[in-house]
Amino acid sequence: MKEIRKDLITGDIAIYSSYRNKRPHDKTIVTNRFDGNDSEYDEKCPFCRGNEASEEDLKEEVLCDDKWIAKSVGNKFPIIDMSTDEIYGLHEVIIETYRHNGSFYNMSEYEYRNFLKLLVSRYASLKNMDNIKYINIFKNFQRNSGASLMHPHSQITSFNLIPPEVEKELKVAKEYFDTNGESVYEYIIRTEIKSGERVVFNGKYFLVIIPYATRYNGEIRIIQKDEVSIDDYSNEHIVELASLFRKLFIKWDEYQGEIPFNMVIHSYPVESECKDIFRTHYHIIPRKYNFGGFELSTNLFVCGTDPNELASLLRFD
Amino acid sequence: MKEIRKDLITGDIAIYSSYRNKRPHDKTIVTNRFDGNDSEYDEKCPFCRGNEASEEDLKEEVLCDDKWIAKSVGNKFPIIDMSTDEIYGLHEVIIETYRHNGSFYNMSEYEYRNFLKLLVSRYASLKNMDNIKYINIFKNFQRNSGASLMHPHSQITSFNLIPPEVEKELKVAKEYFDTNGESVYEYIIRTEIKSGERVVFNGKYFLVIIPYATRYNGEIRIIQKDEVSIDDYSNEHIVELASLFRKLFIKWDEYQGEIPFNMVIHSYPVESECKDIFRTHYHIIPRKYNFGGFELSTNLFVCGTDPNELASLLRFD
Repeated sequence: MKEIRKDLITGDIAIYSSYRNKRPHDKTIVTNRFDGNDSEYDEKCPFCRGNEASEEDLKEEVLCDDKWIAKSVGNKFPIIDMSTDEIYGLHEVIIETYRHNGSFYNMSEYEYRNFLKLLVSRYASLKNMDNIKYINIFKNFQRNSGASLMHPHSQITSFNLIPPEVEKELKVAKEYFDTNGESVYEYIIRTEIKSGERVVFNGKYFLVIIPYATRYNGEIRIIQKDEVSIDDYSNEHIVELASLFRKLFIKWDEYQGEIPFNMVIHSYPVESECKDIFRTHYHIIPRKYNFGGFELSTNLFVCGTDPNELASLLRFD
Repeated sequence: MKEIRKDLITGDIAIYSSYRNKRPHDKTIVTNRFDGNDSEYDEKCPFCRGNEASEEDLKEEVLCDDKWIAKSVGNKFPIIDMSTDEIYGLHEVIIETYRHNGSFYNMSEYEYRNFLKLLVSRYASLKNMDNIKYINIFKNFQRNSGASLMHPHSQITSFNLIPPEVEKELKVAKEYFDTNGESVYEYIIRTEIKSGERVVFNGKYFLVIIPYATRYNGEIRIIQKDEVSIDDYSNEHIVELASLFRKLFIKWDEYQGEIPFNMVIHSYPVESECKDIFRTHYHIIPRKYNFGGFELSTNLFVCGTDPNELASLLRFD
């Protein structure tokens, strides 16, 4: 049985194919560390404590007992830089923990909080530059997700433009608001909490759901309930987010092992008046399988995961 | 130095980053057959001659000495089927050659011609079904491109709708025509042949170029010069296409080894009046590296390949 579903946040169309649910889950048992090192320190890793290159472009660090435990550095191979007027911005790497063998699957709440505080601070710093229209945050875990280094890290870039994917979400949100007189985010928050079927965690600040429709089979989505911009996150926002990440990734690991994933955060453009139609949200995208020619040729994506079933498997308090 | 370029055919935006050209080419020397079998026959392969299951859904075959050398069968795990009214169609797998160890990198012109004749015939057959709006053809080579079996095969599906990616290209083509009074495909064919810098092969029926802008770093694009629909291809179309595929993949292999790739064909919708604005074209997309969180979060793609340089390396007569 095939069914077309539309993602109300992205506007994407997905083909839901129920029979695929019946395939057995093949949990990845082994931690697939592509560098083969499961220790706290790796002498060849440029992100490990003690391996700092003389030319390291340190931006900010979180210290504990005079040693850094999380830090942000300029990316040595930036996707974007200040060399041209057409497209420019800065590109930093946020090293989430000093532990080489850290990951979202094993970081403590304390580690998450330090990482998130640093993320908020770097977001605020990059936002303050002249002519910056958007701050983009993303994370690659494992090579299948695009990562080239195992040491746990996220990336943050500033941009003199709003990226096309965010423009698309803003356009979809505007159209929804114009048609329905309500923000699509408020609609989703209200109806998902009411039904509860796809809710993984319902917090004070964040709602974690498995979206009814997504192009990314098995995606987890975190929608921020209030309108607070990332650079204005309170300590309570950070504490709740750290706690939910910790619990969510333990559940995800129990469900299918430490699979590759991306996390991307879609936040408010710097000078926006879109708080009535938009909310900051996080896409956590499993990358166990690759997109193939079908997806590239059609821009249609096939999902075999039942969102209600996945939500019930991941649900936590 | 970074530069934004716009793909005139897809409308996609790409970031061109010239310094990345300076990274050494790391040619993949070893043929990376993920099933480990480099023989003409694999006893475990469902697509090998002699391994036909009793329930095989044979659609058409090309025979030589009473044995099939290429054939099309119903996909056992169809992306799309006839079970629902909302989205439906048929999904066939075209086995390009009986040789288990065949691939686009080693197929003879004779093998290519048999495969292409079969492709044309299946296209015509699927197009004849009621209420079909589009016939989609794609190919995955190696696991990184989404392939699950090594035996050389392409896939063809019919659809009761025009896929979003094709709708997008048609919209971009319509806008170009309305603004410039000329088909964007005619413009590209004319100007690329005139400059010659990005031309890999200039045939009677097909122009092979490295596009000035593409979201897919290193993409090769084949643009059909005339308006003939795939189901009306003459023997001359097939002979030229078989010859250029053979030469192109030998050159590609010399350049970087037998890397994973996708091929997707964008053809005319079934009932279209768009021959003045659109042309059938082939995207050959390298899949050596994976898209990461940057691409997923922004829908911006970074290219480090200089199209003029790549064209000069691949050019053939």
